[in-house]
Amino acid sequence: MANTALYEAMEQGDFEALSALWLPGDVSCVHPGWPLLRGNGEVLRSYALIMANTDYIQFFLTDVEVSVEGDTALVTCTENILSGGPAEEEGELGPLVGQLVVATNVFRRTGDGWRIWSHHGSPVLTETSEDEDEDGNGDGGRSGI
Amino acid sequence: MANTALYEAMEQGDFEALSALWLPGDVSCVHPGWPLLRGNGEVLRSYALIMANTDYIQFFLTDVEVSVEGDTALVTCTENILSGGPAEEEGELGPLVGQLVVATNVFRRTGDGWRIWSHHGSPVLTETSEDEDEDGNGDGGRSGI
Repeated sequence: MANTALYEAMEQGDFEALSALWLPGDVSCVHPGWPLLRGNGEVLRSYALIMANTDYIQFFLTDVEVSVEGDTALVTCTENILSGGPAEEEGELGPLVGQLVVATNVFRRTGDGWRIWSHHGSPVLTETSEDEDEDGNGDGGRSGI
Repeated sequence: MANTALYEAMEQGDFEALSALWLPGDVSCVHPGWPLLRGNGEVLRSYALIMANTDYIQFFLTDVEVSVEGDTALVTCTENILSGGPAEEEGELGPLVGQLVVATNVFRRTGDGWRIWSHHGSPVLTETSEDEDEDGNGDGGRSGI
């Protein structure tokens, strides 16, 4: 399914494969913490930028749920991301960073298979029980990571 | 259009109107910074909780763009939110908080009009040029508000 292909293209840094997955035209995309991007040009440029700044990225998808209505598929999933940028030293990998992101991906059925119409990923700003133990402050806020 | 109705129901704290806007069944919802919610029960309970903790909320929508394919409408918009919770003193309004959120809303056409299939809102974690001037650090990170 196209949902897996999206994350595989990201992991492999395969910009051409990723570009081919998107519906031509009026697509939309939100990367975690980013403003809205609309249209193939803007969306694909953002992926080129992300790929250029990412030496290593791996997605562990959980809670994948698919709902299909007519020629539209709505996929939601949790992206457990492990990634690293270029290090200061040449040939080294930058420090690995873990990130918890939830995504809503919308696909349209075309003659060439399912194509991405919209991707929206957002950070889960967790308040863990550990935090509460540490500072004794159960303020219920989700305002910080 | 159902997109405006969603925000009006929130502003008016009208839980019944808000409930009637959702497609019955397999809906999904992400509030800014929250994990994924699926199904009418979970989604509507989250709105009841938000309404109970919100004394005042106003949305100024910008960049509203609609894209329709068959019986599905994809709406993206920027939500400029001004809200306030209950204050410590009874009868007073809590401090007002501004928030910048981007949303992807998916609707299905039904016999009763457009119904919400999915709502995904996420915080825009801005890095302003002011920040860069202050600390001279253009690290390109979007890790903090």
